[in-house]
Amino acid sequence: MSDRMPVYLDCDTGVDDSVALAYLLASPAIELVGVGTVSGNTTAAQGARNTLDLLALAGHSHIPVAVGAHDHIDHPYDGGAPHVHGENGIGGVEVPRAATEPDPRGAAQLLLDLSHEYAGNLRVVTIGPMTNLAHALEADPALPSRVAAVVTMGGAALAAGNITPVAEANVYNDPQGAAALLAADWDVTLVPLDVTMEHVLTEEQRGMLLASERPFVRAIGEILDHYFDFYLPTYGERSSALHDPLAAVIAASGVTPTVAPRVPVTVDTSWGPGRGQTIVDLRGQRLGARDHEGVRTRVVLQVDAPVAHHLVSTILAG
Amino acid sequence: MSDRMPVYLDCDTGVDDSVALAYLLASPAIELVGVGTVSGNTTAAQGARNTLDLLALAGHSHIPVAVGAHDHIDHPYDGGAPHVHGENGIGGVEVPRAATEPDPRGAAQLLLDLSHEYAGNLRVVTIGPMTNLAHALEADPALPSRVAAVVTMGGAALAAGNITPVAEANVYNDPQGAAALLAADWDVTLVPLDVTMEHVLTEEQRGMLLASERPFVRAIGEILDHYFDFYLPTYGERSSALHDPLAAVIAASGVTPTVAPRVPVTVDTSWGPGRGQTIVDLRGQRLGARDHEGVRTRVVLQVDAPVAHHLVSTILAG
Repeated sequence: MSDRMPVYLDCDTGVDDSVALAYLLASPAIELVGVGTVSGNTTAAQGARNTLDLLALAGHSHIPVAVGAHDHIDHPYDGGAPHVHGENGIGGVEVPRAATEPDPRGAAQLLLDLSHEYAGNLRVVTIGPMTNLAHALEADPALPSRVAAVVTMGGAALAAGNITPVAEANVYNDPQGAAALLAADWDVTLVPLDVTMEHVLTEEQRGMLLASERPFVRAIGEILDHYFDFYLPTYGERSSALHDPLAAVIAASGVTPTVAPRVPVTVDTSWGPGRGQTIVDLRGQRLGARDHEGVRTRVVLQVDAPVAHHLVSTILAG
Repeated sequence: MSDRMPVYLDCDTGVDDSVALAYLLASPAIELVGVGTVSGNTTAAQGARNTLDLLALAGHSHIPVAVGAHDHIDHPYDGGAPHVHGENGIGGVEVPRAATEPDPRGAAQLLLDLSHEYAGNLRVVTIGPMTNLAHALEADPALPSRVAAVVTMGGAALAAGNITPVAEANVYNDPQGAAALLAADWDVTLVPLDVTMEHVLTEEQRGMLLASERPFVRAIGEILDHYFDFYLPTYGERSSALHDPLAAVIAASGVTPTVAPRVPVTVDTSWGPGRGQTIVDLRGQRLGARDHEGVRTRVVLQVDAPVAHHLVSTILAG
């Protein structure tokens, strides 16, 4: 019996999803017990293909990967973000096609099954739109009672959005899904753009991945190439934000947030200009982070540790 | 003929409105040529009474004060903020009742008349809900062509709101009014909570006002007393944010903003959780402030100068 934390990963693989996946596979704190995919950066089906291929390359073909929702709660899939993640979702890199196929269960069912198998211990990490989570919660409202914690990359508290002035892509792609996840009775750690934009992987660190002896780790370095171009105008140099990887690192307790108050979060599910915004109540926090009583969602606003260093060294040592 | 800038002030007097008024009267750069009031901190009628009484005490009874909108564009006046501004709007301080009465024209008509009288030179400073501005723009869509510039205290860009998690009170009290002002074809300088919360009047500076030989200036110091209590839990000491005064100071070029990009601003006019938010597009500004082409609204995000010092010394010298 492993004493590592069992993790179900819900993702839309995706360049930074690939990096998060590599970290979760390498972290000694984590046992990745299942992956569900959802449309976001690419389609749920393509995300599953990418995940299966990467897992095989990493020697982890035994981990089940289930295809989740293609369309979102109140609108169909909109075509993803090929300008960010490449046409195939992983920066145009051709990873060898694995023999493995998706688990016949859907992602929501896989999550529910794992929540029984690892009842009380399962950690859920979401790094894509939260559609599968909403479906699982609808199918079994008792799901939260069997889940130890949820870590979610999504939203923007006081930071600018990345898909609209106020909305982050994972939440914008399914505001209803995010609202369902945040309304459920479990401990959620929300990892928004406020922190993910502040932690950057450098070209030197990407070079360390490319220099690995392991084809899987080299592939991660290659997959990041296109993404580094995308972030050039943002940061003024080839680099990347650490959106999904930071959620994975926090889930594995690889770094500890320094500012992360438990505060009310409301998702704007309207079709107005605020659609997809995570409205985080940060009033009254000038004199220091202050938890609101009874709130189970904490919003990570600051992480002081050198995230990229920890991430890369963990992947290289994995 | 004065070479001072003619200013029409639209306000809801109001504690910090009183301080802004004192500054505008004292600034050698400004000639205050008219005041319109609107419901906000208190009723439009009470705000006019407060303004008339303060102007008389200051020896400026000749400046016309017109009562503007009692109710807002899509909802009635909601009772104001007596917990912040006191029951009478000016911290419960009893200023001697002036003999002067409001100008029989409404605020919107006064603004329109002044825009003809000072065509091309008039500056508009708004420090309350923007209802009167919306009415004036509706009555005469050519108004912007006769106004040199608009400075508006309102909104929150990346800062937390003060009346909801994302909305500032002036905009929240009339989102439609704010939207009308921001949609008009004139140069608007928006002064949001992002800067007004960062500039604070201290108890020592209030003491300097209280020590003045002039009853008007002493009254301003007294009016601030209640407001200083309100801000104690926010700042950890008796003090006050400089919301309305900062807009007045910027209008008079008393300080120059250091970061103030021209960027798209959309007001959330819905009845959803984002109601009254100023949605400011600050994406792509990490490498420095960058103006969007064709945008006439600049959003003040940083002011480096010692605002409170300039404010107090101007009022004392006035």
